[in-house]
Amino acid sequence: MTDAYLNLVNSGFTKEIAKKLGLPRPAVLRRFDPAKPLVPGPVLVLGKGESADTLASTLLSWQQDVRRHATPKERLGAILMVLDEALTPEDLSAVALDAGASLRDLAPGGRIITVSRPAAEAQDPAAAAARQGIDGTLRSLAHELRGGATANGIVLANGTDATAPSVAAALHFLLSGRSAYVNGQFITIGSAAGELPADWTASLAGKTAVVTGAARGIGASIARVLHREGANVIVVDVPAAGEQLAAVANEVRGTALQVDITRDDAADRILAHAAERYGHLDIVIHNAGITRDKLLANMDSSRWDSVLAVNLSSQLRMNAAFLASETFSRSGRIVSLASTSGIAGNRGQTNYAASKAGIIGMVRATAPLLAPRGGSINAVAPGFIETDMTARMPALTRQVARRLSSLQQGGLPLDVAETIAFLASDAAAGINGTVLRVCGQNMVGA
Amino acid sequence: MTDAYLNLVNSGFTKEIAKKLGLPRPAVLRRFDPAKPLVPGPVLVLGKGESADTLASTLLSWQQDVRRHATPKERLGAILMVLDEALTPEDLSAVALDAGASLRDLAPGGRIITVSRPAAEAQDPAAAAARQGIDGTLRSLAHELRGGATANGIVLANGTDATAPSVAAALHFLLSGRSAYVNGQFITIGSAAGELPADWTASLAGKTAVVTGAARGIGASIARVLHREGANVIVVDVPAAGEQLAAVANEVRGTALQVDITRDDAADRILAHAAERYGHLDIVIHNAGITRDKLLANMDSSRWDSVLAVNLSSQLRMNAAFLASETFSRSGRIVSLASTSGIAGNRGQTNYAASKAGIIGMVRATAPLLAPRGGSINAVAPGFIETDMTARMPALTRQVARRLSSLQQGGLPLDVAETIAFLASDAAAGINGTVLRVCGQNMVGA
Repeated sequence: MTDAYLNLVNSGFTKEIAKKLGLPRPAVLRRFDPAKPLVPGPVLVLGKGESADTLASTLLSWQQDVRRHATPKERLGAILMVLDEALTPEDLSAVALDAGASLRDLAPGGRIITVSRPAAEAQDPAAAAARQGIDGTLRSLAHELRGGATANGIVLANGTDATAPSVAAALHFLLSGRSAYVNGQFITIGSAAGELPADWTASLAGKTAVVTGAARGIGASIARVLHREGANVIVVDVPAAGEQLAAVANEVRGTALQVDITRDDAADRILAHAAERYGHLDIVIHNAGITRDKLLANMDSSRWDSVLAVNLSSQLRMNAAFLASETFSRSGRIVSLASTSGIAGNRGQTNYAASKAGIIGMVRATAPLLAPRGGSINAVAPGFIETDMTARMPALTRQVARRLSSLQQGGLPLDVAETIAFLASDAAAGINGTVLRVCGQNMVGA
Repeated sequence: MTDAYLNLVNSGFTKEIAKKLGLPRPAVLRRFDPAKPLVPGPVLVLGKGESADTLASTLLSWQQDVRRHATPKERLGAILMVLDEALTPEDLSAVALDAGASLRDLAPGGRIITVSRPAAEAQDPAAAAARQGIDGTLRSLAHELRGGATANGIVLANGTDATAPSVAAALHFLLSGRSAYVNGQFITIGSAAGELPADWTASLAGKTAVVTGAARGIGASIARVLHREGANVIVVDVPAAGEQLAAVANEVRGTALQVDITRDDAADRILAHAAERYGHLDIVIHNAGITRDKLLANMDSSRWDSVLAVNLSSQLRMNAAFLASETFSRSGRIVSLASTSGIAGNRGQTNYAASKAGIIGMVRATAPLLAPRGGSINAVAPGFIETDMTARMPALTRQVARRLSSLQQGGLPLDVAETIAFLASDAAAGINGTVLRVCGQNMVGA
């Protein structure tokens, strides 16, 4: 589960050798540390207009140093490229070139963040071209950054502006080390719903959350981060994982519940447990999933059906039950685990990819059911994550898979968990029906 | 411009060596040949419902052998997976497993084609999950096929059904060798517009088309295919390419026009030329484009601005002029060249990716202006294509880039041209505002 190569090229003597040989040198990523500042330096806000002013004020309210013009040679923590007023392709030029001129001053673990409007919502062809052009620029730029720096975008849907709480939430997440492995992605803010936390390190205080498949790996990591953020956590897994599950429950001072999620009464048992112990259920993390890989030419119905049943149908059934229950908060949040395999497909995974693509469709269609009550449902699509599962891959395949992302390394279960905690927070209520990749800008996509 | 490795692993002695060593063995693709049948064997139509019946009839009307059940060991030319009535994830199982059971019987250069409904248009979460699940299945399956076989999908938007002319057009294109390098993609049929050709090998008979950047490479190839399909072709390029342009014009029995497309009067000059020589202009292919690669940290305004001006702003200006002109047909068709770089971004190409992403935005927003008059605008996004430009890449980079697609090879300019000719045909009028990748299912995507 450790990336020996990553350690090698970042320590003393071997670091120098790797440098001289011109080997890829993945950086140690800047991850969340409450003792460290939000961003490793001042934030340069490029671009004109109301949003640029609003975001500069937001940053100042967080005690960040803000620059509206680059100071030569000053080390920067982040660069905001505010382009939401772009009307023609020509409007991108100044901000793009100014950002380029400051790139050498970006600190290791620094951030580039674009702010734009959705291309699909523009009626004028020139405006649509400008908006989509930002997408191409940002994704290319993310490929160019080094030193663990990332580039992501915030997209303001029609009817929202930079004062929406979820804009601040997305900005805070992207600037912070919590988003370490999110790269080359866009977060769309669909509404002004949401409330900022009193304390950004206790963003889930007072909430009750359930995490399925929580006995180990990514699920256990999610339980830990939700607990760290102040939530009461109910960890769920199959009876066979009971011992590990109990250990996780103890660690997060939560409660363990042995449930087979494919059973008809799974949601009812979770709801009953939550009602009894905590009085309410606010957050559901659908993490449990299985793989039964085979080429479709060799696929049998038991492999196909079990993957669809566990990874997808169980969630459809449980969501319906949660939404119909009094125990599940009006403003409840659901986060499902998708996968880059569900976006790009993957050889030997027709069944798994069908289930994970299905999650993306489910999330999009369920979002309108949650929006009117102040709730939300989103998916997170991990790329190559260092887990027991990937540790069993052949060594060379694993090495190649790690390097195929712009960050040249696999992510950690923690990275997926941080992103889920962000989407589960009240501040993120304006983000609904979306998929956020946690993949280091893994190149697989189509 | 030739793929020596591809030739090597497909000829006699060296083929056997490659086989024994377990090296990747990209297949020689099945390309369009009027002397050969549309599909290399009977078509197996899987799935139930009206669309399956309609498509089976369509195939019969083309004198294709159709099977509704697999005959053991019979060599198949194509498998249609008709799933447009899927309402839950469980509805995918039978068709997927039946397709899997017949995969070994698929001929080299065979085809898998799914028929489905848009996931984004489903309101019911289970239906949305099922529909999007087809996406994951198809993309995975495309990764698994060998022998130059491909897998693509036809998506029937709400309000259309399998009787729409563009469904037949897309089916014909995907079954044929014209779609050789289109893999892992979906073609969405948005309306019942369109008219099938009397002769499928003269799909552009009587039309006048203009192709920009036509002096060489992909542009020249487009001119040749449009000519082959019966169009009068006006080839356009900058004055500096005059000699080559004249040669292409002669070859396609068309006319040459030296125009700098960034000039304000570019469209007027094209329109005047078309009006004078042919009386009308029916098809515009925006192919001209430039690259000025640099990391954004080293980008200067001349590199940035020139790429945006040539690749994007010129098209916005020309489209406005075409749409305002009497010479441009009411049912005019526009096809623009995008790029996988505009979808996924590319290191060193912030400017180029901005322009090519911009094309995608432009096409989407211009489509509603053309739809009411029976016209259409779409983009084609080539992946790695064997051209003079890619021949100048370092040898190892080129080898790797070729193998990163499911077809394990680069495409030919011809493959891009065939796809453009398809989108420019009257039969394809129901396809509007979309982007079709011609990339062999190149893995780059995000």
